Amino acid sequence: MSQEATTYPIDPINRVKRLHERAAYDHDTVHAILDAAALAHISYVIDGQPYCTPTLFWREGTRLYWHGSSASRMVRHQAGGVPVCVTVSHLDSLVLARCGFNHSVDYRSVMAFGQAVMVTDLEEKQRALTMMVDRFYPQRTASLRSTTAQETKATAVMAMDIERAAAKVRNKGLADDPEDQDLPIYAERIPVMTVLGEPERCARLPSEIARPESLQPYRAGQRLDTALTQAHRQAYK
Amino acid sequence: MSQEATTYPIDPINRVKRLHERAAYDHDTVHAILDAAALAHISYVIDGQPYCTPTLFWREGTRLYWHGSSASRMVRHQAGGVPVCVTVSHLDSLVLARCGFNHSVDYRSVMAFGQAVMVTDLEEKQRALTMMVDRFYPQRTASLRSTTAQETKATAVMAMDIERAAAKVRNKGLADDPEDQDLPIYAERIPVMTVLGEPERCARLPSEIARPESLQPYRAGQRLDTALTQAHRQAYK
Repeated sequence: MSQEATTYPIDPINRVKRLHERAAYDHDTVHAILDAAALAHISYVIDGQPYCTPTLFWREGTRLYWHGSSASRMVRHQAGGVPVCVTVSHLDSLVLARCGFNHSVDYRSVMAFGQAVMVTDLEEKQRALTMMVDRFYPQRTASLRSTTAQETKATAVMAMDIERAAAKVRNKGLADDPEDQDLPIYAERIPVMTVLGEPERCARLPSEIARPESLQPYRAGQRLDTALTQAHRQAYK
Repeated sequence: MSQEATTYPIDPINRVKRLHERAAYDHDTVHAILDAAALAHISYVIDGQPYCTPTLFWREGTRLYWHGSSASRMVRHQAGGVPVCVTVSHLDSLVLARCGFNHSVDYRSVMAFGQAVMVTDLEEKQRALTMMVDRFYPQRTASLRSTTAQETKATAVMAMDIERAAAKVRNKGLADDPEDQDLPIYAERIPVMTVLGEPERCARLPSEIARPESLQPYRAGQRLDTALTQAHRQAYK
């Protein structure tokens, strides 16, 4: 049995040059940051011009998926296999230090690099269209009106095997210089979190249709990153 | 007196091709989305490879600023004036429809295009380093330990005049097809918001040092986008 890789290779493209003590390349760290997010920023190049498109995405092993309209610029451009960078970030706090230079934020981010390709194999595409829903809301697809052939055709699914990736994390809060620490200047860390509000059920639903138990992680006040992580584990267990 | 432009020009680079009814190019819409955010995703190209770096940024008129270490790859590469795309996005809700195809999210996003340049004029750079703090926390710099020459040197400030920009907004919540609307399938919209937690004052501060009144918008439970918008108005009024 071959040993599975548990870290992404490091080379000049993904090596974190600045504040490298914040960097990590292991699968566990990189994947945890990816799986806690719904939105990625996908950057690609057309005629030397960079574009950066925010879109829903998800991870399956070391492969990332996202979708777009078959008519979109991003999708038409990426179909043939082009280098992309998929970036995910979580803002975790605002850091108000005693000098301007040490003002900062805590964050978790991943930059993942690879070649984007359009998924053309119908079986993989249909499975991806199912997971595009079920990765967020486990087993939900089984309860839905089926996807039509026309809808499948109108949706493009893109995939990228992660060739390189780097996570960068700052979580130290206030970090004033030692010689500044006792200055009588107000300093604080303000936590930042993305949370869910009260779910708004469709007003047309008859009252006997209950909210599925599987949506329980998505409840008011819950952190989105926690709900997404739980859902991902459930979907891929 | 010349009429000021109130909308960004539209051309093939920034024209929203897909779901163009969600698009806007006017300054008010574009700037409101930018000013409600702390984090932008900046994409740029080195040797044909796209990179997308998340970073703090802010707007002054139609000019965007961000900073980085003078040693970072992003900054060293952008110093000479290179095309970049600055993308900002807010996730506003998860939309669980009655079929997979209509699952969606509400969001507000901006893609802004221009040439990134390093700010080398010392006066502009010092003003930018002040606004990098004061744009988020109005008038805070006046209370801080002064920035040293060494700190100014170690920080690179990047700027980009917005040449083109497009906002894209979805805020319609559930939008099932008319023929699906009465299917007995659970459907809902779940609001998503990024909020502030309880500020954690530095434990080393003597109790007589009160939290400045100017930080009042940054209080527990407040939405980050609201606090940032208020701060921007205050800083640039």
